Amino acid sequence: MGSALAAALADAGHPTTVWNRTPGRAPGLAVTRAATVRDAVTAHPIVVACLLRHDSVHETLAPVVDDLRGRTLVNLTTTTPNEARELATWATGHGIRYLDGAIMATPPMIGSREGQVFYSGSAAAFDACRPVFDVWATSEFHGEDAGMASLLDLAMLSAMYGMFAGLTHGAAMAGSAGVRATDFAVRAIPFVGAMTAHFARSAEIIDGGDYTVPGQSLDFSDLGHIVQASEEQGVDPATIVAVQGLIDQQVAAGHGAEVFERIYESLRAPDRAVAR
Amino acid sequence: MGSALAAALADAGHPTTVWNRTPGRAPGLAVTRAATVRDAVTAHPIVVACLLRHDSVHETLAPVVDDLRGRTLVNLTTTTPNEARELATWATGHGIRYLDGAIMATPPMIGSREGQVFYSGSAAAFDACRPVFDVWATSEFHGEDAGMASLLDLAMLSAMYGMFAGLTHGAAMAGSAGVRATDFAVRAIPFVGAMTAHFARSAEIIDGGDYTVPGQSLDFSDLGHIVQASEEQGVDPATIVAVQGLIDQQVAAGHGAEVFERIYESLRAPDRAVAR
Repeated sequence: MGSALAAALADAGHPTTVWNRTPGRAPGLAVTRAATVRDAVTAHPIVVACLLRHDSVHETLAPVVDDLRGRTLVNLTTTTPNEARELATWATGHGIRYLDGAIMATPPMIGSREGQVFYSGSAAAFDACRPVFDVWATSEFHGEDAGMASLLDLAMLSAMYGMFAGLTHGAAMAGSAGVRATDFAVRAIPFVGAMTAHFARSAEIIDGGDYTVPGQSLDFSDLGHIVQASEEQGVDPATIVAVQGLIDQQVAAGHGAEVFERIYESLRAPDRAVAR
Repeated sequence: MGSALAAALADAGHPTTVWNRTPGRAPGLAVTRAATVRDAVTAHPIVVACLLRHDSVHETLAPVVDDLRGRTLVNLTTTTPNEARELATWATGHGIRYLDGAIMATPPMIGSREGQVFYSGSAAAFDACRPVFDVWATSEFHGEDAGMASLLDLAMLSAMYGMFAGLTHGAAMAGSAGVRATDFAVRAIPFVGAMTAHFARSAEIIDGGDYTVPGQSLDFSDLGHIVQASEEQGVDPATIVAVQGLIDQQVAAGHGAEVFERIYESLRAPDRAVAR
């Protein structure tokens, strides 16, 4: 991803200096190579970090924190929202403008408007860096809470992985009776794709907080048949069992006559919150 | 659902006789009302059962099994594939032609081609009943294995519930930072909807059995960040943890360098099969 970001900047004519944890990576790039982290971070007013994880940002940048003062740090390393907030506090405490970015794109998509990058943190830094960001992808600013970009990114990804896991579960069930995954996909993709639109109504129900819909109920949404059929067919029911667990919590709390969207309340159970 | 099925038949001019476990239900229908199950099942050559569950079919029809001999039983009661197979064996053993049907529609959709009903079991019965079936919905026959209609239905539903649970999880994460579910939905629905199309490639990988794709890996798909962020934000990570469990099994088995689609092999672990 770092190579893709640097290559897009170089192609767009932005003077670019790179430093890599593994020397010699991405040899074809038309960029300046810095021998040290200090040389890299002092070359330009905007410093972009795209590292392995949260810890790597501290390890790499702590030794040059005084060189970063007065510059803008754009952190594109994947972090949790709290890790992004922690880095923002660390950076601003050292006079560094901090922007956190979450990349909704694969490396080949960088340099087109096809991908999206969410940013949050310093609004002034976002405005100043916008010409650079627009080289990479479609850019969106999501406010001064530095954790928001990461949070939205991970929320979107959790929805995507739920969808992919569900389709793979369905393919495994069909496959247990000899149906090819491609034959299942031809049928399931348009169905699930079309059903995603129904979540617009689900979201209204969640925001409204009234989970009663005439003629529908959590008892109707009971996934016991899917769990039982999975087990009978030799398919691990774990992902369906987890959803049923969210349903069961609401039924046990007396909400069996309300609708599936009520699982939102299981997900948001306040006693699960970790102190921030 | 029973009322919707009967009303559609009556509207289409098919002579229809109904019997209901709860007398007096659906009073507005232009159909003949049978006083007993025996009166109902002997009125026409096609007998449609739409009951509460598998047990209800036996309880209702066992007393009139001799009256069913020579007729066609179309069972639209929700069952698991094995329950459908058991009913098919019971019916054919008593000289009853058996078709199992799985309804992919809500009651208001019955009577249009918008809904789908999958059928499996007796091919001759499907051909004979086709004019009746086409009144209700788009009809598809899926072979002589009576369990196949239910299996495909539950496979599609498992994919749909995975998608809805994923979107609800994402909404809960966004909601933990004050983002309304409707605002999350505007962003997440087109993203997840578009991503469903990518499952066509996933299905090819699954069918091909080669889970290596250059530049991608299960390590890259690790959902640890989503689990950690969920916990930090006070959102129950159970559904994501279940998917991560499928990933972990494959990493532990030495497949960390392969792609996310490899979770199919966790789902299909043969030692989970229940004897059929």
